[in-house]
Amino acid sequence: MAQSFTLLVDDAHTRARSGVLRTAHGEVETPVFMPVGTQGTVKAIAQDRLKELGVQIFLCNAYHLHLRPGEEVVKEIGGLHRFISWERALLTDSGGFQVFSLADLVRIDDRGVVFRSHLDGSLHEITPQKAMAIQMDLRADIIMALDQCVGFPASVYEEKLAMERTLRWARECREAFFSSDQLLFGIVQGGVNEDLRRESARKTVEIDFDGYAIGGLSVGEPKALMYQMIEVVEPFLPVEKPRYLMGVGHPVSVLEAVTRGVDMFDCVLPTRNARNACLLTRRGKVNIDRLEFARDFRPPDPECQCYTCQNFSRAYLRHLFKTGEILAAELATIHNLYFMIELMRNVRRALRGGCWSEFYNQFVSQYEDHFSG
Amino acid sequence: MAQSFTLLVDDAHTRARSGVLRTAHGEVETPVFMPVGTQGTVKAIAQDRLKELGVQIFLCNAYHLHLRPGEEVVKEIGGLHRFISWERALLTDSGGFQVFSLADLVRIDDRGVVFRSHLDGSLHEITPQKAMAIQMDLRADIIMALDQCVGFPASVYEEKLAMERTLRWARECREAFFSSDQLLFGIVQGGVNEDLRRESARKTVEIDFDGYAIGGLSVGEPKALMYQMIEVVEPFLPVEKPRYLMGVGHPVSVLEAVTRGVDMFDCVLPTRNARNACLLTRRGKVNIDRLEFARDFRPPDPECQCYTCQNFSRAYLRHLFKTGEILAAELATIHNLYFMIELMRNVRRALRGGCWSEFYNQFVSQYEDHFSG
Repeated sequence: MAQSFTLLVDDAHTRARSGVLRTAHGEVETPVFMPVGTQGTVKAIAQDRLKELGVQIFLCNAYHLHLRPGEEVVKEIGGLHRFISWERALLTDSGGFQVFSLADLVRIDDRGVVFRSHLDGSLHEITPQKAMAIQMDLRADIIMALDQCVGFPASVYEEKLAMERTLRWARECREAFFSSDQLLFGIVQGGVNEDLRRESARKTVEIDFDGYAIGGLSVGEPKALMYQMIEVVEPFLPVEKPRYLMGVGHPVSVLEAVTRGVDMFDCVLPTRNARNACLLTRRGKVNIDRLEFARDFRPPDPECQCYTCQNFSRAYLRHLFKTGEILAAELATIHNLYFMIELMRNVRRALRGGCWSEFYNQFVSQYEDHFSG
Repeated sequence: MAQSFTLLVDDAHTRARSGVLRTAHGEVETPVFMPVGTQGTVKAIAQDRLKELGVQIFLCNAYHLHLRPGEEVVKEIGGLHRFISWERALLTDSGGFQVFSLADLVRIDDRGVVFRSHLDGSLHEITPQKAMAIQMDLRADIIMALDQCVGFPASVYEEKLAMERTLRWARECREAFFSSDQLLFGIVQGGVNEDLRRESARKTVEIDFDGYAIGGLSVGEPKALMYQMIEVVEPFLPVEKPRYLMGVGHPVSVLEAVTRGVDMFDCVLPTRNARNACLLTRRGKVNIDRLEFARDFRPPDPECQCYTCQNFSRAYLRHLFKTGEILAAELATIHNLYFMIELMRNVRRALRGGCWSEFYNQFVSQYEDHFSG
């Protein structure tokens, strides 16, 4: 496949950058935030609204789709895009993370993982070959090598074992991958150990992927340690390939990672927060179901141009949450995704305009000033 | 207030008719189906989609809004339209039906009803005067007199008592009502007793309302009895005023009532069915979560032009229901409301085109041929 990523802007003062990733379903401008559509739907919002919001790409979970409806169903209709009716880009994770976090793990060794489904206890095995087969059936534009993730804290021994196994699996995934219209990303592991991270980055890049993810972060470690690991890994990642920090979506963390050279992000937080009545604003989070909003007829975020803020009041949103109405989840999800998409648009604009550092400083100071929790 | 209803078409062979009802928030073409937005939201669908679907008017429940958020909150922002961001017409029921069906009834007499909230057990009283005050605060375009509804079966004594009390309350509501931009409808009661229904209709019309509802039907009685009661009442209702059959939304029942001279309908069924995976089609109901649809990649209803049927497959809808995703409820609600709105558009078109009987016969035979349950 021809070079899929083009770097357009390289910030002079930081590692921040902006580019374009070409996929079989259109271009993705980076830095980009990818909402999470676990089971083939971004929770509480329909595909036409995602498109209106400017979502360029979102992520589906191979683990969930393998269990339900099964990749063979998705393959039969012609892939995920047709199954879920989404014509823009999609990414699937390998399923590894869910195996470790959701399933009942039966056995893990160099061959792969055996686990019981969190739904019905049925026994499943995922090997690197199987992870590729599932994701080639699902046909997302970007697919991920199988990796082993360790939690925090973990012993160096565990971190090293998982990192080496991830490398072995990365090579096997590379060999098993033969799709012409998908991109395959490798994943850097190594816990919070600098040496392991460096080794993982160097050797993963040697295998030669279409892009590189930094995995195993945002699993409970202090933020400073996460930023440090990005700094350690980044110099090893080729500038002409996209870099993807998995599972990170806190607005400030995203900006901290952008300024350290990361291009892609995914996280359930904006959508999960929304369903818990927690709205993102430039000044931090707001719990919209609080009593103080009962007679507050201002928009949830007066600075926001989203459908929710342009049409509804804090009092109405609070009412919807207090009465348990489904519309509460939808309106809050629209707002939070708009916030993230707009944030990334502004990030790209600042990079193109040569004012990245100013933008970054202003956003981070304004957000954290008012941010509690 | 000037005459609010204009009759445009009077079918030559049946009692069916078509007209326009003018409200402070636009015209409503009849016959019309009004979705139910109990707590100030039609469940699982946002206001912009309702507008796109062509919803001209929907109903909110005064009982629910009185308890939460309280009519004083709604009044403070300037009424329901502003509170929920809906610029077209709205109707509120009086709350009477919910007091009898949901609340814990403490006392009922000619003065009014005392009940405990189904939410927190708190004690409330609703009198005719209070029902008017609440609904004038909520400021829907059409509001309803307080009535007493009896179930089925009920003794003639109960039916008579409730009918007479409803008449007394109707007079008191008429006196307590002083809003210039709202319409007040009276409600005909009388159970399934022909004489009581006639008396109720005659005396309610004497009080002089802007429109007349037929209440206390669709409460468990055989359909034939419901149709009979409509036929008994209809000759007493002035042709120049709209007639509203409360709580009826089964497609065939709606058509049976239209052909007997009814103009307006409301029902939770299309939206409640949707959330239970039950889709309405011209051939009857379809439970879209059944196993047979797991690999069925056709649209839910191939004849339907709604967003759901134009974009998604039966297999995807089934997947969304089986995985408990919120999008399932939204997509099914869009479809079912589209079905009802489109049905009523076709009803009006048939009436204007002078082919009502043909339309009615064809729809009813096609629907019931395949309808089971």
